[in-house]
Amino acid sequence: MEKIPMEIEIIGFIAAVLTSVSFVPQVYKIWKTKSAKGVSLTMFLLFFVGVILWLVYGIFINSLSMIIANAITSCLALVIIYYKLKIKE
Amino acid sequence: MEKIPMEIEIIGFIAAVLTSVSFVPQVYKIWKTKSAKGVSLTMFLLFFVGVILWLVYGIFINSLSMIIANAITSCLALVIIYYKLKIKE
Repeated sequence: MEKIPMEIEIIGFIAAVLTSVSFVPQVYKIWKTKSAKGVSLTMFLLFFVGVILWLVYGIFINSLSMIIANAITSCLALVIIYYKLKIKE
Repeated sequence: MEKIPMEIEIIGFIAAVLTSVSFVPQVYKIWKTKSAKGVSLTMFLLFFVGVILWLVYGIFINSLSMIIANAITSCLALVIIYYKLKIKE
């Protein structure tokens, strides 16, 4: 695949920061309240597999912003899954 | 941008189904418990703006799977934001 122009990649990078950062308050909330009750495990498991596939897709289409975003988001989703399984409620 | 080959788009479509569908149990859980307490509003607002930017990015790079995924996900994120604001807790 051809290289994605930098001006388009910038949109991707801003999107990457927002969708990645959006997981931080969720992780913080679970840590603070010591409760993952309101969070659906099913959601995060499906989401995690989906994000891994977006990462593979990003590699194939040479999208640096998708690769970085989905690598970070998959790690954050894993943290939430870990808490959910650990707290068990 | 050149057209993304169908075999790569298939990975994107599977990813799209998973990350879109992953929101359904969250919406169902909020509806069933009548509580959006465990869900972070900050997260979904940041996430919503991020998803809109991924939609714009998908349009620029001619990625049909990204366009469809982010259009659906943004609508589902809007439903969660609506519940969160309506239930207010």
